[in-house]
Amino acid sequence: MELLERRILSEGKVLDGGVLKVGSFLNQRIDTSLLGQMADEAAKLFEGEAVDKILTVEASGIAFAVAVALKFKADVVVAKKHRSSNVSGDCFEAEAASFTHGGTNKIIVEKDYLSKGDRILICDDFLAEGNAMQALLDIAAEAQARVVGCLAEIEKGFQGGGDRLRDKGVNVKSLAIVEDMSDGKIVFRQNNRM
Amino acid sequence: MELLERRILSEGKVLDGGVLKVGSFLNQRIDTSLLGQMADEAAKLFEGEAVDKILTVEASGIAFAVAVALKFKADVVVAKKHRSSNVSGDCFEAEAASFTHGGTNKIIVEKDYLSKGDRILICDDFLAEGNAMQALLDIAAEAQARVVGCLAEIEKGFQGGGDRLRDKGVNVKSLAIVEDMSDGKIVFRQNNRM
Repeated sequence: MELLERRILSEGKVLDGGVLKVGSFLNQRIDTSLLGQMADEAAKLFEGEAVDKILTVEASGIAFAVAVALKFKADVVVAKKHRSSNVSGDCFEAEAASFTHGGTNKIIVEKDYLSKGDRILICDDFLAEGNAMQALLDIAAEAQARVVGCLAEIEKGFQGGGDRLRDKGVNVKSLAIVEDMSDGKIVFRQNNRM
Repeated sequence: MELLERRILSEGKVLDGGVLKVGSFLNQRIDTSLLGQMADEAAKLFEGEAVDKILTVEASGIAFAVAVALKFKADVVVAKKHRSSNVSGDCFEAEAASFTHGGTNKIIVEKDYLSKGDRILICDDFLAEGNAMQALLDIAAEAQARVVGCLAEIEKGFQGGGDRLRDKGVNVKSLAIVEDMSDGKIVFRQNNRM
């Protein structure tokens, strides 16, 4: 998505440790005009697919998930990283390593919130190693839901997670794929242009 | 907002420790049809107000903030509870005790994301003791922004936080105010009806 790629080039910052910072427009300050256009693009990418639920994980995937869900008239289901006092009942659980935070998160979804046969689109802001997406896929599988596809705002192609999922037959789409940023210069995968 | 009150009565669960669980439609599984109608109601409550930014705190406030921001064509600014590797630069900071999680959170917003004179609407899912709202007000004050108002999906009136803020002159609105749920039966504040 050219508009997103241009914005990443103008405002994205390559930080130490392979972090691409897009806080000024995507996840700390959110430009809702861009967000709306990204949701339009998502609707085009999965046009004709019936989607019951958008599945994401807190916290930075929620904004995109909500914008996409409003397009699809679908519910959002938010996997949580902590079992707090307002999580009760049986949960689906999966393990996910976090690239930005370090460590491993157990992500959980209450069983009541996903049903067998639900048509699910998994959405997240970033797709890097693919650990969060894989954990969400694991949870969807445990719920016996049908995953329509996975959608990221930004994929870090050089970390390989997206391609590993594609190799397994998962329908993975990303609005922008960063192929390289090793020398601080951001290069996008060209054949991702839509 | 009658639609929300009816939904709380039919699906909300009063848990031990004064927790009102609305995970099945408001913050773990999100009914985006209801969310869209709550955003419409928010637009009516603050009609005629120019709003530049919706300020919220991760994670469960984000969905409502995004839906409201799309109505106002405003940006969303998400205060974070942790300084992770994608937070860089100078930050505004404030302390907030958490009712659902226990403990105290330091919430932070990078200084670049709020500007002097910004017209800000503070949004959150719950308003209970008012600690998160107060922390967001503190951050807005530090940024020399102008707070148009505070808006919660659900206020737990019996905890008094909303009224304490109103007594200080803050324009606080809530789509539903639970006045009492001490015996497990949810009673709403009647003069909140719009």
